[in-house]
Amino acid sequence: MNPESEVEVLLIEDNPADVELTLRALKKRNLANKVHVVSDGAQALEFLFQEPGQGRNRPSPKVVFLDLKLPKVDGHEVLKRMKSDPRTRTIPVVILTSSKEESDILQTYSNGANSYVVKPLDFEKFVEAVSQLGLYWVLLNEAPR
Amino acid sequence: MNPESEVEVLLIEDNPADVELTLRALKKRNLANKVHVVSDGAQALEFLFQEPGQGRNRPSPKVVFLDLKLPKVDGHEVLKRMKSDPRTRTIPVVILTSSKEESDILQTYSNGANSYVVKPLDFEKFVEAVSQLGLYWVLLNEAPR
Repeated sequence: MNPESEVEVLLIEDNPADVELTLRALKKRNLANKVHVVSDGAQALEFLFQEPGQGRNRPSPKVVFLDLKLPKVDGHEVLKRMKSDPRTRTIPVVILTSSKEESDILQTYSNGANSYVVKPLDFEKFVEAVSQLGLYWVLLNEAPR
Repeated sequence: MNPESEVEVLLIEDNPADVELTLRALKKRNLANKVHVVSDGAQALEFLFQEPGQGRNRPSPKVVFLDLKLPKVDGHEVLKRMKSDPRTRTIPVVILTSSKEESDILQTYSNGANSYVVKPLDFEKFVEAVSQLGLYWVLLNEAPR
């Protein structure tokens, strides 16, 4: 089994502290084994649009957690590319950001974001929110196969 | 304050037993005060597309829980109408159905569903799932204002 075809959560996040907290929260729920982390939008697109082959399927995570402010290609652009391409448009994308701007909320929903969650500033609340996100999108929600 | 502008959850469900269970689960989390229930797709569209006026805004719930098999206008059609109209396309829609058919899952995501949850058959698990749905979409998720 190729690990890439097994990825359940694709985390697109450039802040190492947020990555660490997110992984810790998912680990608490036993959801951290199948997480793939990339730290900019270009790597995210490369991962999502890699050609299948040699027994590999194209990665089809159950959910993508997408930060908005990212190096190289920002989150708005990653979202637009995913939601305008039939190969990736049905993969659920949750915006996970520190921005509470109504313009970011409206724009991302208009571009097909499935959900929008503001990162809590408080450490404990951040861990609790990510834990809830993991349980919801990995266990309760049905993503297309 | 007009109650319609205050609706947080629009529940579109024709099965009275499922409506009762859903309301009970939301009540346990103190989320049942601002729920509006309609039992077919035509009523749902009438509610969502009512013209604002006389101090009323158009209803803009934080989330819509949408069954697929509905009298008059089915859930697939309600979803398509909501997601193709700028007045309603950014409202999060969660498909809440007994169907596990991959074709329903793919079709609804392609048409812009935000999430797809299969109703658990077991009573306790149903209540737990709806409770999780309520907490996620009413409290954690940010919907456009």
